[in-house]
Amino acid sequence: MPLETYRNEMLPAVEEALKAAIQPANTPGQEVLYGMLAYHMGWEGPGAGPKAAGKRVRSILLLLSCAAAGGDWRAALPAAAAVELLHNFSLIHDDIQDKGELRRGRPTLWTMHGPEQAINAGDAMFSLAHISLEGLEQTAGLAVYAAAAKLLARTSLQLTQGQYLDMAYETVPNPGVEAYWPMIWGKTAVLIRGCTDLGARVAGLTGASLKAYMLFGEKLGLAYQVHDDLLGIWGNPDEMGKSAHTDLLSGKKSLPVLYALEKKGIFAERWQDGGIPEEQVAEFAEILEEEGARDFTRQQAAQLTQEALDALAHAQPQADAGAALAALAEELGHRNV
Amino acid sequence: MPLETYRNEMLPAVEEALKAAIQPANTPGQEVLYGMLAYHMGWEGPGAGPKAAGKRVRSILLLLSCAAAGGDWRAALPAAAAVELLHNFSLIHDDIQDKGELRRGRPTLWTMHGPEQAINAGDAMFSLAHISLEGLEQTAGLAVYAAAAKLLARTSLQLTQGQYLDMAYETVPNPGVEAYWPMIWGKTAVLIRGCTDLGARVAGLTGASLKAYMLFGEKLGLAYQVHDDLLGIWGNPDEMGKSAHTDLLSGKKSLPVLYALEKKGIFAERWQDGGIPEEQVAEFAEILEEEGARDFTRQQAAQLTQEALDALAHAQPQADAGAALAALAEELGHRNV
Repeated sequence: MPLETYRNEMLPAVEEALKAAIQPANTPGQEVLYGMLAYHMGWEGPGAGPKAAGKRVRSILLLLSCAAAGGDWRAALPAAAAVELLHNFSLIHDDIQDKGELRRGRPTLWTMHGPEQAINAGDAMFSLAHISLEGLEQTAGLAVYAAAAKLLARTSLQLTQGQYLDMAYETVPNPGVEAYWPMIWGKTAVLIRGCTDLGARVAGLTGASLKAYMLFGEKLGLAYQVHDDLLGIWGNPDEMGKSAHTDLLSGKKSLPVLYALEKKGIFAERWQDGGIPEEQVAEFAEILEEEGARDFTRQQAAQLTQEALDALAHAQPQADAGAALAALAEELGHRNV
Repeated sequence: MPLETYRNEMLPAVEEALKAAIQPANTPGQEVLYGMLAYHMGWEGPGAGPKAAGKRVRSILLLLSCAAAGGDWRAALPAAAAVELLHNFSLIHDDIQDKGELRRGRPTLWTMHGPEQAINAGDAMFSLAHISLEGLEQTAGLAVYAAAAKLLARTSLQLTQGQYLDMAYETVPNPGVEAYWPMIWGKTAVLIRGCTDLGARVAGLTGASLKAYMLFGEKLGLAYQVHDDLLGIWGNPDEMGKSAHTDLLSGKKSLPVLYALEKKGIFAERWQDGGIPEEQVAEFAEILEEEGARDFTRQQAAQLTQEALDALAHAQPQADAGAALAALAEELGHRNV
């Protein structure tokens, strides 16, 4: 069964689980707060629909990991909803912190309801992630629920640690490529590792087999973020739902930029903290590419994706779901841009 | 053993548990984020000390509930730290949302590090609350840990629901006294109920006895907020670590204000959404008092405190700790102002 078939089967189940997970927020008098969450998830308001919802990559990864580890992926749905809610909580706060005005092609929550209410809506989403996990007690037992609750709490702490570094680097002129890895480890890789970990855990894995899934997720998470940094400069703006060269416009110290700053060439000389004027971004992107930043970043993504695939092979996944999982990993870490 | 003796014994243990709970954030490269948390908790930076730390009311209430329910309060320390961390997470975000510049007599976190980093520090504190609970598995068993994790997640959702209403009322000219109760129920009472609930739960209570502790906490939480609203207008600014009449300055729709707005007298006529100029707040406070808002609010606090004490008596607490718990309840809900 190819990845697309899995995805077509899983995605409606994920949306259903997510909608059920958000229901505790839908109480009398709370219709507006609930509406904010439903808007952010892509279900309500102007522009609602699959494109606004996003691809639920983390949920699908978690469910496929469960299936590849020999489990029934439906038992992992509460966890699949939880990781997606945790991710979306972090996006809501991230958009406030970055003053991001567009997310998946629609105005961000804070631009519509103000940062105060959006901070609070993010906090509600965070709470719902934890509440969603409770369903695991029914589907996988008390011990798995407890382990998952611990994992989610630690993952969210590490998310904030990565986010702290990301914001702190804004005022560091040349943090260096080495500073990049702990930042994306916290911001992205830990949650992706949490997905493969939780999926395998619901399937009953422990010990070395579980660790192989964790390593797969960690490497894949790093690859995914590196790849996202490529898209942030050279991605297709229509596909991204953001402007072209968005990371250059916002002055984000993504991997290609850190690489070029370290090289101290023309890019580094002309780079301005805080962002590049719109009329110059295309030129800056070209200089970056000429100085080798695009190739370097591509190569990092490819290598990390390969390491992820090696870890997955080591985990000896069930053939059908394992192949789909490998295909997903290639898609996330290694698409051509 | 009187309340003060319990408090003197418990408070150092709470501080120790809190410091241990915040340690997971203290990793290499994260010294600044950790410092933000330690500053907010009153341990580091200018003005650090017991006054900056606050009274840890929620922790003490939780530990006393455990002792009154016949348990060993030391077993409840991970939960006592968790409720305090959850409360402090909500304060960090609250200060950003309210643009509050002083907290316990010191500059608030966002005024020192910017709202972006303060949002993130709050998120880290939220995560640490969940992590802290894990200690319960050792002291009280897996089932109690799992129940506590569920309680904390639901409590934090209800916190955000109360906070939503609080902010939403800012733009409603006359929400009415009835609108007040669901708001403070979420903002304050649910977490206070969580304290008495968790304390009794660690002591092994279930069924009707546990419910009596929950009712005690819920009523006490309402009383505590009503009383806090009295302090926000008529409290001693030195004791509060804030300006005098601070709630009138900020235009907060606290219970006395809602009462007077509903009466549609002179206060309602002169009230301005968004706050009252500093030179007029003393006069506004007098008008409020003349129109009966202070008496009404006092009476509500007294009645709710009595209902809390009745619920506590119904729970048949262990004599010594029960008396201390009753004394704490009187202090929180019913001090003379």
